[in-house]
Amino acid sequence: MRLIHQGLGSIGLGIARLALERGHTVVAACDLDPAKAGQDLGALLGISPLGVEVTTDAAAALQTPADILVHCTGSRLRTVLPQLEAAVEAGLDVASTCEELAYPWHHHPGEARRLDEAARRRGVTVVGLGVNPGFVMDALPIMLTSPCRQVNRVTAERVVDVSTRREALQRKVGVGLTPDAFQAGVREGRLGHVGLAESAAMIAAALGWEVARISEEITPVVGGDVVRGLHQVARAYRIEGGEEPAVVLDLVMAQGAADPHDAVTIHGVPEVHVVIPGGIHGDLATWAIVANALPAIKDAPPGLLPVYRLPLLHLTA
Amino acid sequence: MRLIHQGLGSIGLGIARLALERGHTVVAACDLDPAKAGQDLGALLGISPLGVEVTTDAAAALQTPADILVHCTGSRLRTVLPQLEAAVEAGLDVASTCEELAYPWHHHPGEARRLDEAARRRGVTVVGLGVNPGFVMDALPIMLTSPCRQVNRVTAERVVDVSTRREALQRKVGVGLTPDAFQAGVREGRLGHVGLAESAAMIAAALGWEVARISEEITPVVGGDVVRGLHQVARAYRIEGGEEPAVVLDLVMAQGAADPHDAVTIHGVPEVHVVIPGGIHGDLATWAIVANALPAIKDAPPGLLPVYRLPLLHLTA
Repeated sequence: MRLIHQGLGSIGLGIARLALERGHTVVAACDLDPAKAGQDLGALLGISPLGVEVTTDAAAALQTPADILVHCTGSRLRTVLPQLEAAVEAGLDVASTCEELAYPWHHHPGEARRLDEAARRRGVTVVGLGVNPGFVMDALPIMLTSPCRQVNRVTAERVVDVSTRREALQRKVGVGLTPDAFQAGVREGRLGHVGLAESAAMIAAALGWEVARISEEITPVVGGDVVRGLHQVARAYRIEGGEEPAVVLDLVMAQGAADPHDAVTIHGVPEVHVVIPGGIHGDLATWAIVANALPAIKDAPPGLLPVYRLPLLHLTA
Repeated sequence: MRLIHQGLGSIGLGIARLALERGHTVVAACDLDPAKAGQDLGALLGISPLGVEVTTDAAAALQTPADILVHCTGSRLRTVLPQLEAAVEAGLDVASTCEELAYPWHHHPGEARRLDEAARRRGVTVVGLGVNPGFVMDALPIMLTSPCRQVNRVTAERVVDVSTRREALQRKVGVGLTPDAFQAGVREGRLGHVGLAESAAMIAAALGWEVARISEEITPVVGGDVVRGLHQVARAYRIEGGEEPAVVLDLVMAQGAADPHDAVTIHGVPEVHVVIPGGIHGDLATWAIVANALPAIKDAPPGLLPVYRLPLLHLTA
C-alpha cells in the first residue's frame, strides 16, 4: 500500500517504521517542524534513505499518488479538521491518531457529519484509531459485550505508570507541576488525556444506548507537594438509565502508579470480567494498531467510521 | 429480522429466546425430534404461543419468506452440509453453531469452497459462530494481536468446571466413563470438544500464517477410577516455524476443575496477557453471540465468512 505520512512525532514515526516492516511504501511525508524539512524520512527513522524528503508543505505531499494518509498531528478534531478534509478531497483513505476523531459524533456532531459526507462523496474511509481511544477502553469492552444476553453497565479501568514513558506523555499528565498549576492546566485544556469521553460515547453508541450526558473529571495524583500524574474518570449516562452511569471509564496515568493494568467489566448477564496484568503498552500499541489496521481501512466502506465498524482488527503481515 | 430456526435443542432454543427478546421474529421452526413436531415454538420456550408450529420438514420450513436461518443441528460439517446448502439455495443468510463451520478451510477445504461458492452465487452470507469455537479461543486472541508489532505464538487456555453444566455437555466430555471407555469414545469421535483444531486454524489464517499441520490430543481427567472430564490440546505448526507450535489451545472441561478461567497470551512485542477469572459461561454466551451477531451477518458481504471478517461483534438491541 502507498502511504503518505502527516505528522512525524513519536507516534507518526513509530507507525511509519512498522508500516515499512509490513511491506507498505511511504511515498510522501510532511511535518510542520522546519528542523525535519528537507531530511530523508529514513534518516528520521534511523534507517537507510527511503528517497522520501520530508516537507512542511502538506498540500504538495497530498499530490503524490497514494492509497492512505497516516495522520498523526494532533488530538483535537477542530484543529486537524482542515487537514483531514484536504486528504479526503485528495481521494485518500485516512487512518488518524487524532483522539477526538475516534468517536466525534457526540461532542462534535457537526464536524463528524461534514467529514462523513465528504468521505462518502469521495468514496474514501476515515477512521480514528489507536490504543486509547480505539482499543483498550472502547473496542475491547465493546467486543466483550458480545457473549452477553443483557448489559447494564460497562466499566473499564486503566492504570499506567508513566515513569517509563516518554517525557511528552509525562508532561501531558502534569508530572512535576504544583497542584495549582495542574488545575490551571486542566481548566485551560492543556492537561489531561484526550479521548476518554469519546471512548465512553463510542461504547454507548455501539450498544445502541442513547446518551443523556457524559461527565468527565480530572484530578491530580499528588506525591509530596508535587503532581505525579492524573486520575481521570468519564461517565456516560443513558437517557433511560436513571441516576447511575451506564459507562464508567477510570484512568490513572502517574509516575510510580501501583499495579499497572487494564481491566474491563461487563456488568450484565453473564458478567464478563477481563484483566490485563501490566496493561497494554500505550505507544507501541498505537503504532501497531494503526499499522495493522491499514488493510482493513483500505477495504472498508466509504465514510467516517468508528473502529468497531471495521472487521476484527488483528496482526497483519 | 425474520428468522427460521433449524435445530431446537438447548442451544437452538436459547438463541430463539434471545432473538425474540431482541425484537426479531421467528417465522418457522424445524427439528428432527417427532416429540417436538406439531408443538407451538412458544410452548417449547415456555412462553406464550408464537403461532409457529414446529415441523420435522425442513424443506417446508425453508419455503417461508425469511432473512436468516439460525442453524443448530450438529457439530460436524459433513453431516450438516446438505442442510446449509438447502438454506443457501433458499436465499437465506445462515448463522450456524456447527463447530466445524467456524473455520472449515483447513480440515474441510472442499466443503468450504463448495459452500462459499454457493453462498456467493446466491448473494448470502454463511457464518459459523458461538463461544468456542467463535469467540474465547479464537476471535478474542485474534483481536488481542492488534496492539502487537510482532507475534511469535498465540496461546489460550480454558478451564471449565462442567459440574454446573447440562448433562449433554458432561456426556460429551466423558464424565462417569471408565478410562477405557473414554479412550474408545475418543477413537470413535464420540467424545471430545469439536472445534478446537478449527480455532487454531482460524487464528493462523487471520494472522496470515501458513499452517504445516495441526495436532490434537485428548486425554481423560481421572478422579478415583472414573473419568471426570477431558483435557484437550490443539497445536498449529507454521510451515516456516520450526519445531515449536505457533498456536497452542489448551482446554480442560471436567467436573470440579479447579480455578475455572479463560486466559490468552499473545507472545510477541509487546506481550499481551489477558485473564478472564471464572471464564465465560459457555451456553449462555453462545446464545448471546449468535443473537447479537444477526444484524452483522445480514449486512455482511456474501460468502462463507469466518467470524473475524465480520465487524466487531457486540451486544445488539
